[in-house]
Amino acid sequence: MYTLYIANKNYSTWSLRPWLLMTQLKIPFEEMLIPFGSADWNKNPSPTGQVPCLSDQQSDGSVISVWDSLAITEYVADEYPQVWPQDKKVKAWARCATAEMHSGFHTLRSICTNNIGLRIDISTKMEPALLKDINRIEQLWTEGLDKFGGPFLAGEKFTAVDAFFAPVVFRFQSYGIKLGDKAAKYADHLRNLPAMQDWYQASLAETWRDEPHEADARNAGPWLQDLRAI
Amino acid sequence: MYTLYIANKNYSTWSLRPWLLMTQLKIPFEEMLIPFGSADWNKNPSPTGQVPCLSDQQSDGSVISVWDSLAITEYVADEYPQVWPQDKKVKAWARCATAEMHSGFHTLRSICTNNIGLRIDISTKMEPALLKDINRIEQLWTEGLDKFGGPFLAGEKFTAVDAFFAPVVFRFQSYGIKLGDKAAKYADHLRNLPAMQDWYQASLAETWRDEPHEADARNAGPWLQDLRAI
Repeated sequence: MYTLYIANKNYSTWSLRPWLLMTQLKIPFEEMLIPFGSADWNKNPSPTGQVPCLSDQQSDGSVISVWDSLAITEYVADEYPQVWPQDKKVKAWARCATAEMHSGFHTLRSICTNNIGLRIDISTKMEPALLKDINRIEQLWTEGLDKFGGPFLAGEKFTAVDAFFAPVVFRFQSYGIKLGDKAAKYADHLRNLPAMQDWYQASLAETWRDEPHEADARNAGPWLQDLRAI
Repeated sequence: MYTLYIANKNYSTWSLRPWLLMTQLKIPFEEMLIPFGSADWNKNPSPTGQVPCLSDQQSDGSVISVWDSLAITEYVADEYPQVWPQDKKVKAWARCATAEMHSGFHTLRSICTNNIGLRIDISTKMEPALLKDINRIEQLWTEGLDKFGGPFLAGEKFTAVDAFFAPVVFRFQSYGIKLGDKAAKYADHLRNLPAMQDWYQASLAETWRDEPHEADARNAGPWLQDLRAI
């Protein structure tokens, strides 16, 4: 039985990946949300003290902890092969794009910190390194959609590579990043999935505020809108 | 048939990972080394223009390109299961430690850039974030060795998690990083593998110099020794 430890839906992009993957593919799991800074934080079994962490209780009572979003993905894929595309070439592409997201795009992640309920004017921070990250993501999306026919990155079915880029879709929304037609259509498609809508509404409904994340958002630029519950 | 595109052995830590993995596990591949800045760089099939990139010619003549070290690892593991430990719990641990290396340890990587043939005095750069990275690596190694009995991180056999930490072993050597007994013994064990010795000797024998990498090494601190061929 899987238990997925996550943090605030409004802030935690890494939590969204395995949550969306399992929700969209109807893989059963129990969600355990611990807000950043809460007294319950030490209940998170991750040795790094970060989220997400998947806890898998075995039939002998022992528990396997999997504490990285990509390791969770491959761990779950061993049991549920639909996590990846089945075709060897498509699977290789999906894994590369996923791994690139897992280890890269640091400028995007450090400037456009995730705060799903905010709309922020990023225009003063549009440096070349940020544009490079955005352009590479758009190039990857377009390549996948062209090669495999859409509407998902690896073809007809939602797979892990979509889950890994889902947080970016929310970032692009928060910061009003303009995309070409094909990439914009993909972003809309992903954002309109019922599981993504559920996550989005839950983000807006959260009333917890974590000061380090709020400070990052203030530092990103002037806030145009704050859609979060008070 | 696998062809592995790599760059200078003296500089390219990411190249070492899949090269060592396949060499140590006796998985056949052809090595294609293209030095940084060489006119042949555009022969590298990676869409990111980086290394490593695995090129896998299919029986129908088409080619699958796999352009990230962790994606290469999982791609090869689909054909060669010995890439990962076979026990489910050990495999989960190995994948988490590998993924943590893949996406993290940025301070170590940016301050202690890889230059296998140099010995550099890093004492003036020993900031808390660097110490934190070093301590976490030592903690991970010790955990693996204690849990699974050594001499490799996931037990008796060399697996992908060792390949992912192999570049760190060379970094620690270049920068004279002191480790506890258990971690130091593991580093020695890894460094003494014939495949690691081959890579090391090939690094020292290289006479190519790439100015951006050399500048990083000068910036790291005073050079105590330069063991590279002239």
